[in-house]
Amino acid sequence: VIAGLAVTPQIPLLGQSAAIHAVREYRQAHEREIVAELVRFLELPNVADDVEAIYLNARALSDMLKQRGIEPVLLETGGAPYVYGERKTAGSDRTVLFYAHYDGQPVAVERWEGHLPFQPVLRDKPLAAGGRIIELPAEGPFDPDWRLYARSAADDKGPIIALLAALDALDAAGLEPSVNLRFLFEGDEEVGSPHLAEVAGANSELLRADLVVAADGPNDPSGLPTMYFGARGIVSAEITVYGPLRPLHSGHYGNWAPNPALRLADLLAGMKSTATGRVLIEGFYDDVRALSDFELRALAEAPYDDEEQQRVFGIAQPEAEGKRLELINQPSLNIRGLRSGWVGAEARTIVPDQAVANLDLRLVEDIDPREQIERLIAHVRKQGYAVVGSEPDLETRLRHPRLARIVVSDGYPAFRTSMDLAVSRAVIASVEEHTGQTAVKLPTLGGSVPLYVFTDVLQVPTVGIPTVNHDNNQHSPNENLRLGHLWNGIEVLASAMLLK
Amino acid sequence: VIAGLAVTPQIPLLGQSAAIHAVREYRQAHEREIVAELVRFLELPNVADDVEAIYLNARALSDMLKQRGIEPVLLETGGAPYVYGERKTAGSDRTVLFYAHYDGQPVAVERWEGHLPFQPVLRDKPLAAGGRIIELPAEGPFDPDWRLYARSAADDKGPIIALLAALDALDAAGLEPSVNLRFLFEGDEEVGSPHLAEVAGANSELLRADLVVAADGPNDPSGLPTMYFGARGIVSAEITVYGPLRPLHSGHYGNWAPNPALRLADLLAGMKSTATGRVLIEGFYDDVRALSDFELRALAEAPYDDEEQQRVFGIAQPEAEGKRLELINQPSLNIRGLRSGWVGAEARTIVPDQAVANLDLRLVEDIDPREQIERLIAHVRKQGYAVVGSEPDLETRLRHPRLARIVVSDGYPAFRTSMDLAVSRAVIASVEEHTGQTAVKLPTLGGSVPLYVFTDVLQVPTVGIPTVNHDNNQHSPNENLRLGHLWNGIEVLASAMLLK
Repeated sequence: VIAGLAVTPQIPLLGQSAAIHAVREYRQAHEREIVAELVRFLELPNVADDVEAIYLNARALSDMLKQRGIEPVLLETGGAPYVYGERKTAGSDRTVLFYAHYDGQPVAVERWEGHLPFQPVLRDKPLAAGGRIIELPAEGPFDPDWRLYARSAADDKGPIIALLAALDALDAAGLEPSVNLRFLFEGDEEVGSPHLAEVAGANSELLRADLVVAADGPNDPSGLPTMYFGARGIVSAEITVYGPLRPLHSGHYGNWAPNPALRLADLLAGMKSTATGRVLIEGFYDDVRALSDFELRALAEAPYDDEEQQRVFGIAQPEAEGKRLELINQPSLNIRGLRSGWVGAEARTIVPDQAVANLDLRLVEDIDPREQIERLIAHVRKQGYAVVGSEPDLETRLRHPRLARIVVSDGYPAFRTSMDLAVSRAVIASVEEHTGQTAVKLPTLGGSVPLYVFTDVLQVPTVGIPTVNHDNNQHSPNENLRLGHLWNGIEVLASAMLLK
Repeated sequence: VIAGLAVTPQIPLLGQSAAIHAVREYRQAHEREIVAELVRFLELPNVADDVEAIYLNARALSDMLKQRGIEPVLLETGGAPYVYGERKTAGSDRTVLFYAHYDGQPVAVERWEGHLPFQPVLRDKPLAAGGRIIELPAEGPFDPDWRLYARSAADDKGPIIALLAALDALDAAGLEPSVNLRFLFEGDEEVGSPHLAEVAGANSELLRADLVVAADGPNDPSGLPTMYFGARGIVSAEITVYGPLRPLHSGHYGNWAPNPALRLADLLAGMKSTATGRVLIEGFYDDVRALSDFELRALAEAPYDDEEQQRVFGIAQPEAEGKRLELINQPSLNIRGLRSGWVGAEARTIVPDQAVANLDLRLVEDIDPREQIERLIAHVRKQGYAVVGSEPDLETRLRHPRLARIVVSDGYPAFRTSMDLAVSRAVIASVEEHTGQTAVKLPTLGGSVPLYVFTDVLQVPTVGIPTVNHDNNQHSPNENLRLGHLWNGIEVLASAMLLK
């Protein structure tokens, strides 16, 4: 998601705990086996809508749990099954539930360079830097800058293998986890987790835990261990403003037929200030929950790369004042698309019949998706528009000089687990003390993940621990996982199994 | 151009002059021959970019002139040739130059119903009203509601045939035109008349005249004879506003990366008031030339069908106060297209990298196209934008928080011949007295035609006399000409040959 930043992670090798040192020694001795298990897993096509393929993945994953002495349970959904497993730790009354997903994004086969998306290959450096395909050596050690290219290498089969390798490493070193371990692997994440809330509701006992660790997403580009305690929710709305019933000749009708593109521009311009970046819709920020001192301090300590990002993305000046990582603790209104008439070589001399804008509203903790959309609709009404939900007929058009259709997506709320909770402090301490590094700790991830299911349905504090390289081409052709990030992921996730 | 209006022309048959009565009698006796000549002409494909086909048309047209005793001259251009011809009238020192075009718009063959675009067919009523293909009867009279379907039937081969039939009718009746006649037929009109100014400049003696009559375009839906003494000019501009170098994740970057769609909306909203319909760009109306009392009276007398048009097009309220025919005497700013990111099923959660608006500015007499565009650019600069003419590089993006690229089309100015000139009064009197009807007389046609070449380069007063049915599907599949409009066209154009 922070693709394109030319930051090479520099992972200090000092300061880790004896336990993590043992995990690292195990990994160094088993690099070939760990990579081989991931390669076999990646050879299984896993696009969410191919149910048969998804079941092959679920069965392979079940076998991988069985090999670790964990009895797999398939939680059926009517769609892709969840794979569940549990390992008790004698004498522990605390439980950590690890969540990841085994399905992958669709693939545009023709855009993959040099191999098919489900034929994993190893490259000696990133493709973008001229990396070439190399043989998988018969044994390690492997160069940590080598990368494995395949769909789901990073999102999210790599982290599943890291979790299993962490368990193997602790076992091999004779180190008991400090908590009971539960695993929940989803097969429908890339289509929006349509069954997650239902599965959580129906299996609340099975999934009961003191902490959920979601192992998904890219590590901070600094290479430091990364933890997010919240993520923005999302809801989207498509606004259509109407002009004449069909496009009219702009010579004969321009000046007379209302232009819907101008009307839409006017409507959108009134929603947000281009000068301050503030949304001007009444009540938009009302429910924002303030960050605690600890969270503010964590943000202040987080690596600051705004200027580097401005340089890379050609941004002379950000939209609003403040650091990017602070700003994403606020709700947002983003125009993600505009369409009206034609432009460029296709431009024709018409007054368009309609103009469409698609918006996404990102939400933060305590903002209700439905209420935020109602605020948007109220704002549109306040500008004199009649708001309808479906394509208006001629009579409706003739009744309302200003007419807008607003179609709303379902969306879901934000989640946020307070960093001040004892269990939050404990997982932070585990990761930082075991790895010997100060973690990047974010109150809110800018992007949206439906982890509110864990915090709101299961009522379990939740932290995301993303471990893969930021330039992994997630959701795109040539997805890849840097081996050094896989190694570090094993150590960071092992730390969470040794919860303080 | 006023397609879709369900107005059936009612042509009163009373009050015409003896000369026009004679023209009508000739036509009634020769309907079969007139239609057959048009059909043969329509069988020649005439899309402007097919040079070979265009020359076949030019030669056929030359033959048609020769048959009338007019020696044709091909004026070569490097593109399509102009076909020129002249017929002197003994004792007359006045000259009328008739202009029309023999090329046609491109055809989407698969969208023509029941026949190919260059296989003309006769239908017993409009296709939209269930009209069926009928045989061309061996002799007239033909039902005036029958329609001939073919590319260029209305735009603009029908009017060429009307001109030639008018000449035949006057000859047959032994009626001399009151003026010398000149004919100029263009073969590049549908690609924007790229050679017209050059041909006019190089042949100013050949084309010298007291009046130009342009025989092109649709009659007023009322069915009354129609004359326009001006037309708006046009110039277009595409404005691109820049955001990040490539689309960014709206979760991780929304609130921070500037959104170009919002910026563009804000910029466009500031250009024109949605409340009054007035353009807010400084100087936009400065050069507008006021209409004379005679012109204002002509406008006031013109048929008023705004309410009918609102009903048909689903417009609850026009953009500005005033009659449509009055409003088109003002310059306009029309957003004809918007593009940014994606909408609908393709919407994705991104901050777009750019947003594009395509505008057309219609011009009226005395507004210079270049100056009007400079006013637009000055307005954009005043909003804090650096304006560039080509795709900006990274350095340029990093230098300017607000950056817009504006690409301008050539365009051309409006034309307007004062209705108060003696020759204007004369042609109005000729048409009204001969046909016995009050003509619809427009100071300005809303659409753009490059007749400024006649008024500005040749310095000849110019009037447009459009004669074809308004619902002719000009520029679209299933173009057609109503026979009753062809008949009336012959009479109206004959009236102009009998200039008072």
